Amino acid sequence: MPELRVLPVGGLPEIGNGDDLGALIAERAELEDGDVIVVAQKVVSKAEGRVVRLADVEPSARARELAGSDDPRRLEVILGEAKRIVRSRPPLVVVETRHGFVCASAGVDASNAPEPGTVVLLPVDPDDSAARIRDRLRELTGRSVGVIVSDTFGRAWRQGIANVAIGAAGVEVLRDFRGHYDANGYELHTTVIAIADEIAAAAELVMGKLEGVPAAVVRGLDVVGEGTARDIVMPRGQDLFQ
Amino acid sequence: MPELRVLPVGGLPEIGNGDDLGALIAERAELEDGDVIVVAQKVVSKAEGRVVRLADVEPSARARELAGSDDPRRLEVILGEAKRIVRSRPPLVVVETRHGFVCASAGVDASNAPEPGTVVLLPVDPDDSAARIRDRLRELTGRSVGVIVSDTFGRAWRQGIANVAIGAAGVEVLRDFRGHYDANGYELHTTVIAIADEIAAAAELVMGKLEGVPAAVVRGLDVVGEGTARDIVMPRGQDLFQ
Repeated sequence: MPELRVLPVGGLPEIGNGDDLGALIAERAELEDGDVIVVAQKVVSKAEGRVVRLADVEPSARARELAGSDDPRRLEVILGEAKRIVRSRPPLVVVETRHGFVCASAGVDASNAPEPGTVVLLPVDPDDSAARIRDRLRELTGRSVGVIVSDTFGRAWRQGIANVAIGAAGVEVLRDFRGHYDANGYELHTTVIAIADEIAAAAELVMGKLEGVPAAVVRGLDVVGEGTARDIVMPRGQDLFQ
Repeated sequence: MPELRVLPVGGLPEIGNGDDLGALIAERAELEDGDVIVVAQKVVSKAEGRVVRLADVEPSARARELAGSDDPRRLEVILGEAKRIVRSRPPLVVVETRHGFVCASAGVDASNAPEPGTVVLLPVDPDDSAARIRDRLRELTGRSVGVIVSDTFGRAWRQGIANVAIGAAGVEVLRDFRGHYDANGYELHTTVIAIADEIAAAAELVMGKLEGVPAAVVRGLDVVGEGTARDIVMPRGQDLFQ
Protein backbone atom coordinates (compact mmCIF):
# COMPACT_ATOMS: atom_id res chain seq x y z
CA MET A 1 0.00 0.00 0.00
CA PRO A 2 1.35 3.43 -0.79
CA GLU A 3 2.12 5.60 2.20
CA LEU A 4 1.76 9.37 2.20
CA ARG A 5 4.49 11.41 3.87
CA VAL A 6 4.43 15.12 4.60
CA LEU A 7 7.82 16.63 5.39
CA PRO A 8 8.13 20.16 6.75
CA VAL A 9 10.59 22.50 5.09
CA GLY A 10 11.80 24.79 7.85
CA GLY A 11 14.66 27.09 8.61
CA LEU A 12 13.93 29.59 5.86
CA PRO A 13 14.98 33.15 6.59
CA GLU A 14 12.47 36.02 6.69
CA ILE A 15 11.40 36.42 3.05
CA GLY A 16 11.63 39.75 1.23
CA ASN A 17 10.88 41.15 -2.21
CA GLY A 18 12.89 39.38 -4.90
CA ASP A 19 13.99 36.41 -2.81
CA ASP A 20 14.49 33.17 -4.70
CA LEU A 21 12.02 30.84 -2.99
CA GLY A 22 12.86 27.94 -5.28
CA ALA A 23 16.52 28.12 -4.26
CA LEU A 24 15.70 28.52 -0.58
CA ILE A 25 13.51 25.41 -0.69
CA ALA A 26 15.91 23.39 -2.85
CA GLU A 27 18.70 23.99 -0.30
CA ARG A 28 16.57 22.60 2.51
CA ALA A 29 14.71 19.65 0.98
CA GLU A 30 15.87 16.47 -0.73
CA LEU A 31 13.30 16.38 -3.51
CA GLU A 32 12.17 13.33 -5.46
CA ASP A 33 10.36 13.14 -8.78
CA GLY A 34 6.61 13.26 -8.20
CA ASP A 35 6.81 15.17 -4.92
CA VAL A 36 4.36 18.00 -4.42
CA ILE A 37 5.80 21.08 -2.74
CA VAL A 38 3.22 23.15 -0.89
CA VAL A 39 4.33 26.74 -0.30
CA ALA A 40 2.44 29.14 1.94
CA GLN A 41 0.97 32.12 0.11
CA LYS A 42 2.47 34.52 2.63
CA VAL A 43 6.07 33.82 1.62
CA VAL A 44 5.19 33.72 -2.08
CA SER A 45 3.53 37.12 -1.80
CA LYS A 46 6.44 38.59 0.13
CA ALA A 47 8.93 37.29 -2.44
CA GLU A 48 6.81 38.95 -5.12
CA GLY A 49 6.64 42.26 -3.27
CA ARG A 50 2.89 42.05 -2.70
CA VAL A 51 3.08 44.17 0.43
CA VAL A 52 1.27 47.46 1.02
CA ARG A 53 2.12 50.05 3.65
CA LEU A 54 -1.14 51.29 5.19
CA ALA A 55 0.34 54.76 5.69
CA ASP A 56 0.30 55.10 1.88
CA VAL A 57 -3.41 54.23 1.58
CA GLU A 58 -6.21 56.81 1.38
CA PRO A 59 -9.49 55.16 2.37
CA SER A 60 -12.64 55.81 0.36
CA ALA A 61 -16.06 56.42 1.85
CA ARG A 62 -17.02 52.83 0.97
CA ALA A 63 -13.98 51.52 2.84
CA ARG A 64 -14.90 53.58 5.89
CA GLU A 65 -18.43 52.24 5.79
CA LEU A 66 -17.27 48.60 5.56
CA ALA A 67 -14.58 49.06 8.22
CA GLY A 68 -16.87 49.76 11.15
CA SER A 69 -14.47 50.32 14.04
CA ASP A 70 -11.58 48.71 12.14
CA ASP A 71 -8.86 50.48 10.10
CA PRO A 72 -10.53 51.78 6.90
CA ARG A 73 -7.19 51.70 5.06
CA ARG A 74 -7.15 47.92 5.38
CA LEU A 75 -10.64 47.80 3.86
CA GLU A 76 -9.48 50.07 1.06
CA VAL A 77 -6.72 47.60 0.19
CA ILE A 78 -9.28 44.77 0.26
CA LEU A 79 -11.62 46.67 -2.08
CA GLY A 80 -8.73 47.08 -4.50
CA GLU A 81 -8.31 43.30 -4.63
CA ALA A 82 -12.02 42.52 -4.91
CA LYS A 83 -14.19 41.92 -7.95
CA ARG A 84 -17.30 42.09 -5.77
CA ILE A 85 -18.39 41.93 -2.18
CA VAL A 86 -20.18 38.67 -1.35
CA ARG A 87 -21.06 39.38 2.29
CA SER A 88 -20.17 42.03 4.82
CA ARG A 89 -20.72 42.60 8.50
CA PRO A 90 -18.30 45.33 9.52
CA PRO A 91 -15.43 44.82 9.88
CA LEU A 92 -15.81 41.34 8.32
CA VAL A 93 -15.99 41.26 4.55
CA VAL A 94 -16.11 38.24 2.26
CA VAL A 95 -15.29 39.05 -1.36
CA GLU A 96 -14.70 37.47 -4.69
CA THR A 97 -11.10 38.24 -5.54
CA ARG A 98 -9.90 39.14 -9.00
CA HIS A 99 -8.81 35.49 -9.33
CA GLY A 100 -12.36 34.33 -8.59
CA PHE A 101 -11.70 33.04 -5.08
CA VAL A 102 -14.36 33.75 -2.49
CA CYS A 103 -12.63 34.43 0.81
CA ALA A 104 -12.48 36.76 3.80
CA SER A 105 -10.69 40.09 3.31
CA ALA A 106 -9.62 39.15 -0.25
CA GLY A 107 -6.76 37.27 1.41
CA VAL A 108 -5.30 40.58 2.63
CA ASP A 109 -3.60 39.85 5.94
CA ALA A 110 -1.46 41.61 8.53
CA SER A 111 -0.21 38.48 10.31
CA ASN A 112 3.38 37.54 9.47
CA ALA A 113 3.64 40.76 7.44
CA PRO A 114 7.15 42.17 6.95
CA GLU A 115 6.64 44.90 9.55
CA PRO A 116 3.90 46.52 11.62
CA GLY A 117 1.69 48.78 9.52
CA THR A 118 1.96 46.64 6.41
CA VAL A 119 -0.41 44.07 4.94
CA VAL A 120 0.28 41.23 2.54
CA LEU A 121 -1.87 40.68 -0.58
CA LEU A 122 -2.44 37.48 -2.53
CA PRO A 123 -0.11 36.96 -5.51
CA VAL A 124 -1.37 38.54 -8.74
CA ASP A 125 -1.43 35.12 -10.43
CA PRO A 126 -0.81 32.29 -7.95
CA ASP A 127 -0.84 29.63 -10.70
CA ASP A 128 1.98 31.51 -12.36
CA SER A 129 3.77 31.81 -9.00
CA ALA A 130 3.54 28.03 -8.61
CA ALA A 131 4.81 27.47 -12.16
CA ARG A 132 7.82 29.70 -11.61
CA ILE A 133 8.77 27.95 -8.36
CA ARG A 134 8.32 24.61 -10.10
CA ASP A 135 10.57 25.62 -12.99
CA ARG A 136 13.21 26.89 -10.58
CA LEU A 137 13.14 23.68 -8.54
CA ARG A 138 13.58 21.64 -11.70
CA GLU A 139 16.46 23.83 -12.79
CA LEU A 140 18.23 23.53 -9.45
CA THR A 141 17.50 19.91 -8.53
CA GLY A 142 16.71 18.17 -11.80
CA ARG A 143 13.53 16.87 -10.17
CA SER A 144 10.10 17.09 -11.70
CA VAL A 145 7.73 18.10 -8.93
CA GLY A 146 4.32 19.66 -8.55
CA VAL A 147 3.90 22.93 -6.69
CA ILE A 148 0.86 24.21 -4.81
CA VAL A 149 0.58 27.70 -3.36
CA SER A 150 -1.71 27.46 -0.34
CA ASP A 151 -3.68 29.80 1.86
CA THR A 152 -6.03 29.24 4.77
CA PHE A 153 -9.63 30.12 3.93
CA GLY A 154 -12.72 30.16 6.07
CA ARG A 155 -15.68 28.08 5.01
CA ALA A 156 -19.41 28.63 5.04
CA TRP A 157 -21.17 26.76 7.86
CA ARG A 158 -18.03 25.33 9.43
CA GLN A 159 -15.91 26.82 12.17
CA GLY A 160 -12.23 27.40 11.63
CA ILE A 161 -10.10 27.91 8.59
CA ALA A 162 -8.41 25.24 6.52
CA ASN A 163 -5.64 25.28 3.98
CA VAL A 164 -6.64 25.23 0.29
CA ALA A 165 -4.81 25.54 -3.01
CA ILE A 166 -4.82 29.01 -4.56
CA GLY A 167 -2.13 28.21 -7.12
CA ALA A 168 -0.94 25.01 -8.74
CA ALA A 169 1.52 23.77 -11.34
CA GLY A 170 2.41 20.28 -12.51
CA VAL A 171 -0.19 18.67 -10.32
CA GLU A 172 -3.65 17.18 -10.62
CA VAL A 173 -6.13 19.57 -9.00
CA LEU A 174 -9.51 17.87 -9.43
CA ARG A 175 -9.74 14.08 -9.71
CA ASP A 176 -12.81 13.06 -11.62
CA PHE A 177 -14.42 9.74 -10.72
CA ARG A 178 -17.50 10.31 -12.87
CA GLY A 179 -18.01 7.36 -15.14
CA HIS A 180 -16.29 5.07 -12.62
CA TYR A 181 -18.25 2.35 -10.87
CA ASP A 182 -18.22 1.13 -7.31
CA ALA A 183 -18.03 -2.56 -6.33
CA ASN A 184 -21.79 -2.95 -6.96
CA GLY A 185 -21.67 -1.40 -10.40
CA TYR A 186 -23.17 1.89 -9.18
CA GLU A 187 -21.84 4.77 -11.23
CA LEU A 188 -20.22 7.54 -9.23
CA HIS A 189 -22.08 10.49 -10.71
CA THR A 190 -21.01 13.47 -8.70
CA THR A 191 -17.63 12.54 -7.38
CA VAL A 192 -14.94 15.01 -8.26
CA ILE A 193 -12.35 15.17 -5.48
CA ALA A 194 -10.58 18.46 -4.85
CA ILE A 195 -7.25 16.75 -4.28
CA ALA A 196 -5.16 19.91 -4.51
CA ASP A 197 -7.13 21.32 -1.58
CA GLU A 198 -6.66 18.07 0.32
CA ILE A 199 -2.91 18.16 -0.35
CA ALA A 200 -2.79 21.76 0.88
CA ALA A 201 -4.72 20.73 4.01
CA ALA A 202 -2.33 17.84 4.69
CA ALA A 203 0.64 20.22 4.36
CA GLU A 204 -0.83 22.73 6.80
CA LEU A 205 -0.69 20.09 9.52
CA VAL A 206 3.12 20.31 9.50
CA MET A 207 3.38 23.98 8.51
CA GLY A 208 1.40 25.49 11.34
CA LYS A 209 0.93 29.20 11.87
CA LEU A 210 3.80 30.18 14.12
CA GLU A 211 6.77 27.88 13.73
CA GLY A 212 8.36 29.36 10.64
CA VAL A 213 7.67 26.41 8.37
CA PRO A 214 6.39 28.01 5.17
CA ALA A 215 6.62 24.93 2.96
CA ALA A 216 6.16 21.18 3.01
CA VAL A 217 6.99 18.27 0.73
CA VAL A 218 4.11 15.86 0.14
CA ARG A 219 5.44 12.49 -1.03
CA GLY A 220 3.87 9.22 -2.11
CA LEU A 221 0.95 10.46 -4.19
CA ASP A 222 0.51 9.80 -7.86
CA VAL A 223 -0.79 13.24 -8.77
CA VAL A 224 1.36 14.52 -11.60
CA GLY A 225 -0.97 16.56 -13.78
CA GLU A 226 -1.70 19.83 -15.46
CA GLY A 227 -4.37 21.42 -13.27
CA THR A 228 -4.52 25.01 -12.12
CA ALA A 229 -6.11 26.42 -9.00
CA ARG A 230 -8.44 28.45 -11.21
CA ASP A 231 -10.04 25.13 -12.16
CA ILE A 232 -11.28 24.95 -8.57
CA VAL A 233 -13.25 28.19 -8.84
CA MET A 234 -16.89 27.23 -9.29
CA PRO A 235 -18.51 28.90 -12.30
CA ARG A 236 -21.21 31.25 -11.07
CA GLY A 237 -23.98 29.52 -12.97
CA GLN A 238 -23.27 26.26 -11.14
CA ASP A 239 -23.00 27.77 -7.70
CA LEU A 240 -26.04 27.55 -5.40
CA PHE A 241 -24.42 30.00 -2.96
CA GLN A 242 -23.82 33.21 -4.89
CA MET B 1 11.28 18.31 12.41
CA PRO B 2 8.24 16.11 12.90
CA GLU B 3 7.09 14.21 9.84
CA LEU B 4 3.48 13.38 9.14
CA ARG B 5 2.68 9.91 7.81
CA VAL B 6 -0.65 8.70 6.47
CA LEU B 7 -0.95 4.93 6.24
CA PRO B 8 -3.87 3.32 4.42
CA VAL B 9 -5.77 0.55 6.18
CA GLY B 10 -6.96 -1.74 3.42
CA GLY B 11 -8.19 -5.26 2.96
CA LEU B 12 -11.34 -4.87 5.02
CA PRO B 13 -14.21 -7.09 3.95
CA GLU B 14 -17.55 -5.66 2.82
CA ILE B 15 -19.03 -4.18 6.01
CA GLY B 16 -22.50 -5.12 7.25
CA ASN B 17 -24.79 -4.29 10.15
CA GLY B 18 -23.20 -5.17 13.49
CA ASP B 19 -19.66 -5.62 12.21
CA ASP B 20 -16.91 -4.77 14.68
CA LEU B 21 -15.02 -2.02 12.87
CA GLY B 22 -12.60 -1.54 15.74
CA ALA B 23 -11.55 -5.18 15.56
CA LEU B 24 -11.31 -5.14 11.77
CA ILE B 25 -9.01 -2.11 11.91
CA ALA B 26 -6.96 -3.38 14.87
CA GLU B 27 -6.20 -6.59 12.93
CA ARG B 28 -4.83 -4.63 9.99
CA ALA B 29 -2.92 -1.73 11.53
CA GLU B 30 -0.01 -1.56 13.96
CA LEU B 31 -1.25 1.35 16.06
CA GLU B 32 0.86 3.67 18.19
CA ASP B 33 -0.20 5.98 20.99
CA GLY B 34 -1.20 9.36 19.57
CA ASP B 35 -2.19 8.03 16.15
CA VAL B 36 -5.39 9.37 14.64
CA ILE B 37 -7.51 6.78 12.86
CA VAL B 38 -9.73 8.23 10.15
CA VAL B 39 -12.66 5.99 9.24
CA ALA B 40 -14.90 6.64 6.25
CA GLN B 41 -18.50 7.41 7.18
CA LYS B 42 -19.76 4.84 4.70
CA VAL B 43 -18.38 1.84 6.60
CA VAL B 44 -19.34 3.32 9.97
CA SER B 45 -22.92 3.77 8.76
CA LYS B 46 -23.06 0.26 7.32
CA ALA B 47 -21.75 -1.22 10.57
CA GLU B 48 -24.50 0.68 12.38
CA GLY B 49 -27.22 -0.51 10.04
CA ARG B 50 -27.92 2.98 8.66
CA VAL B 51 -29.15 1.62 5.35
CA VAL B 52 -32.58 2.19 3.81
CA ARG B 53 -34.18 0.16 1.04
CA LEU B 54 -35.86 2.58 -1.36
CA ALA B 55 -38.58 0.03 -2.09
CA ASP B 56 -39.77 0.59 1.50
CA VAL B 57 -40.05 4.37 1.10
CA GLU B 58 -43.26 6.23 0.24
CA PRO B 59 -42.37 9.65 -1.19
CA SER B 60 -44.30 12.75 -0.06
CA ALA B 61 -45.47 15.52 -2.37
CA ARG B 62 -42.57 17.66 -1.14
CA ALA B 63 -40.09 14.93 -2.04
CA ARG B 64 -41.59 14.63 -5.53
CA GLU B 65 -41.30 18.36 -6.00
CA LEU B 66 -37.63 18.45 -4.91
CA ALA B 67 -36.73 15.37 -6.91
CA GLY B 68 -37.34 16.80 -10.36
CA SER B 69 -36.57 13.90 -12.69
CA ASP B 70 -34.72 11.99 -9.95
CA ASP B 71 -36.08 9.24 -7.68
CA PRO B 72 -38.47 10.95 -5.20
CA ARG B 73 -37.93 8.14 -2.71
CA ARG B 74 -34.30 9.22 -2.35
CA LEU B 75 -35.48 12.77 -1.64
CA GLU B 76 -37.92 11.44 0.93
CA VAL B 77 -35.05 9.77 2.79
CA ILE B 78 -33.09 13.03 2.62
CA LEU B 79 -36.02 15.02 4.03
CA GLY B 80 -36.18 12.59 6.94
CA GLU B 81 -32.56 13.39 7.77
CA ALA B 82 -32.89 17.16 7.35
CA LYS B 83 -33.60 19.87 9.89
CA ARG B 84 -34.10 22.38 7.06
CA ILE B 85 -33.45 22.84 3.39
CA VAL B 86 -30.69 25.39 2.73
CA ARG B 87 -30.78 25.41 -1.07
CA SER B 88 -32.44 23.32 -3.75
CA ARG B 89 -32.28 23.07 -7.49
CA PRO B 90 -33.96 19.76 -8.38
CA PRO B 91 -32.61 17.18 -8.00
CA LEU B 92 -29.82 18.89 -6.00
CA VAL B 93 -30.65 19.68 -2.42
CA VAL B 94 -28.38 21.12 0.26
CA VAL B 95 -29.72 20.71 3.76
CA GLU B 96 -28.83 21.19 7.37
CA THR B 97 -28.78 17.72 8.86
CA ARG B 98 -30.09 16.90 12.29
CA HIS B 99 -26.44 17.06 13.46
CA GLY B 100 -26.14 20.63 12.15
CA PHE B 101 -23.95 19.83 9.15
CA VAL B 102 -24.76 21.67 5.95
CA CYS B 103 -24.18 19.30 3.05
CA ALA B 104 -25.65 17.94 -0.14
CA SER B 105 -28.39 15.30 0.15
CA ALA B 106 -28.03 15.19 3.97
CA GLY B 107 -25.14 12.83 3.33
CA VAL B 108 -27.55 10.22 1.94
CA ASP B 109 -25.66 8.32 -0.73
CA ALA B 110 -26.13 5.35 -3.02
CA SER B 111 -22.47 4.85 -3.93
CA ASN B 112 -20.82 1.91 -2.19
CA ALA B 113 -24.22 1.00 -0.72
CA PRO B 114 -24.69 -2.64 0.32
CA GLU B 115 -26.81 -3.42 -2.75
CA PRO B 116 -28.58 -1.71 -5.62
CA GLY B 117 -31.78 0.00 -4.48
CA THR B 118 -30.40 0.92 -1.08
CA VAL B 119 -28.97 4.18 0.24
CA VAL B 120 -26.67 4.81 3.18
CA LEU B 121 -27.44 7.50 5.77
CA LEU B 122 -25.03 9.35 8.05
CA PRO B 123 -24.59 7.84 11.53
CA VAL B 124 -27.14 9.06 14.08
CA ASP B 125 -24.34 10.45 16.27
CA PRO B 126 -20.97 10.36 14.50
CA ASP B 127 -19.08 11.66 17.57
CA ASP B 128 -20.46 8.72 19.49
CA SER B 129 -19.50 6.39 16.62
CA ALA B 130 -15.93 7.71 16.82
CA ALA B 131 -15.86 7.31 20.60
CA ARG B 132 -17.03 3.71 20.38
CA ILE B 133 -14.40 2.80 17.76
CA ARG B 134 -11.78 4.56 19.89
CA ASP B 135 -12.77 2.60 23.01
CA ARG B 136 -12.72 -0.66 21.08
CA LEU B 137 -9.26 0.09 19.64
CA ARG B 138 -7.95 0.82 23.10
CA GLU B 139 -9.47 -2.38 24.44
CA LEU B 140 -7.95 -4.50 21.67
CA THR B 141 -4.54 -2.84 21.23
CA GLY B 142 -3.88 -1.00 24.51
CA ARG B 143 -3.15 2.09 22.42
CA SER B 144 -4.65 5.48 23.08
CA VAL B 145 -5.59 6.93 19.71
CA GLY B 146 -7.89 9.57 18.32
CA VAL B 147 -10.65 8.65 15.89
CA ILE B 148 -12.24 10.77 13.19
CA VAL B 149 -15.26 9.71 11.16
CA SER B 150 -14.97 11.42 7.78
CA ASP B 151 -17.20 12.18 4.85
CA THR B 152 -16.64 14.07 1.62
CA PHE B 153 -18.63 17.31 1.47
CA GLY B 154 -19.01 19.84 -1.30
CA ARG B 155 -18.09 23.44 -0.58
CA ALA B 156 -19.63 26.74 -1.55
CA TRP B 157 -17.72 28.51 -4.37
CA ARG B 158 -15.17 25.73 -4.92
CA GLN B 159 -15.38 22.84 -7.32
CA GLY B 160 -15.05 19.31 -6.07
CA ILE B 161 -15.65 17.66 -2.76
CA ALA B 162 -13.16 17.25 0.06
CA ASN B 163 -13.02 15.07 3.12
CA VAL B 164 -14.07 16.62 6.43
CA ALA B 165 -14.61 15.38 9.97
CA ILE B 166 -18.20 14.56 10.87
CA GLY B 167 -17.32 12.71 14.08
CA ALA B 168 -14.36 12.87 16.43
CA ALA B 169 -13.13 11.38 19.70
CA GLY B 170 -9.87 11.83 21.59
CA VAL B 171 -8.56 14.40 19.16
CA GLU B 172 -8.19 18.15 18.92
CA VAL B 173 -10.72 19.45 16.41
CA LEU B 174 -10.14 23.22 16.33
CA ARG B 175 -6.72 24.66 17.18
CA ASP B 176 -7.01 28.17 18.50
CA PHE B 177 -4.13 30.56 17.83
CA ARG B 178 -5.97 33.62 19.13
CA GLY B 179 -3.83 35.35 21.68
CA HIS B 180 -0.66 34.03 20.01
CA TYR B 181 1.74 36.41 18.33
CA ASP B 182 3.69 36.17 15.11
CA ALA B 183 7.42 36.95 14.80
CA ASN B 184 6.64 40.70 14.65
CA GLY B 185 4.48 40.69 17.73
CA TYR B 186 1.26 40.87 15.67
CA GLU B 187 -1.55 39.08 17.47
CA LEU B 188 -3.29 36.39 15.46
CA HIS B 189 -6.88 37.49 15.96
CA THR B 190 -8.93 35.24 13.80
CA THR B 191 -6.87 32.13 13.44
CA VAL B 192 -8.66 28.99 14.48
CA ILE B 193 -7.49 26.06 12.37
CA ALA B 194 -9.95 23.27 11.61
CA ILE B 195 -7.33 20.59 12.10
CA ALA B 196 -9.76 17.68 12.26
CA ASP B 197 -10.96 18.62 8.77
CA GLU B 198 -7.36 18.87 7.59
CA ILE B 199 -6.59 15.44 9.08
CA ALA B 200 -9.65 14.01 7.31
CA ALA B 201 -8.49 15.61 4.04
CA ALA B 202 -5.00 14.15 4.42
CA ALA B 203 -6.49 10.70 5.00
CA GLU B 204 -8.67 10.91 1.92
CA LEU B 205 -5.55 11.13 -0.23
CA VAL B 206 -4.74 7.49 0.61
CA MET B 207 -8.33 6.28 1.02
CA GLY B 208 -9.66 7.19 -2.41
CA LYS B 209 -13.13 6.40 -3.64
CA LEU B 210 -12.77 3.04 -5.31
CA GLU B 211 -9.89 1.07 -3.87
CA GLY B 212 -11.54 -0.40 -0.79
CA VAL B 213 -9.46 1.54 1.72
CA PRO B 214 -12.06 2.76 4.23
CA ALA B 215 -9.60 3.87 6.92
CA ALA B 216 -6.19 5.44 7.39
CA VAL B 217 -3.76 5.95 10.25
CA VAL B 218 -2.42 9.51 10.58
CA ARG B 219 0.82 9.51 12.55
CA GLY B 220 3.22 12.16 13.78
CA LEU B 221 0.80 14.86 14.91
CA ASP B 222 0.48 16.10 18.46
CA VAL B 223 -3.31 16.39 18.46
CA VAL B 224 -4.56 14.44 21.45
CA GLY B 225 -7.59 16.37 22.67
CA GLU B 226 -11.24 16.30 23.57
CA GLY B 227 -12.94 17.94 20.59
CA THR B 228 -16.07 16.77 18.87
CA ALA B 229 -17.13 17.31 15.28
CA ARG B 230 -20.15 19.22 16.54
CA ASP B 231 -17.71 21.93 17.65
CA ILE B 232 -17.06 22.54 13.94
CA VAL B 233 -20.68 23.41 13.22
CA MET B 234 -20.86 27.19 12.99
CA PRO B 235 -23.55 28.68 15.24
CA ARG B 236 -26.22 30.28 13.08
CA GLY B 237 -25.78 33.72 14.57
CA GLN B 238 -22.12 33.79 13.48
CA ASP B 239 -22.69 32.48 10.00
CA LEU B 240 -22.77 34.99 7.16
CA PHE B 241 -24.07 32.31 4.78
CA GLN B 242 -27.34 31.06 6.22
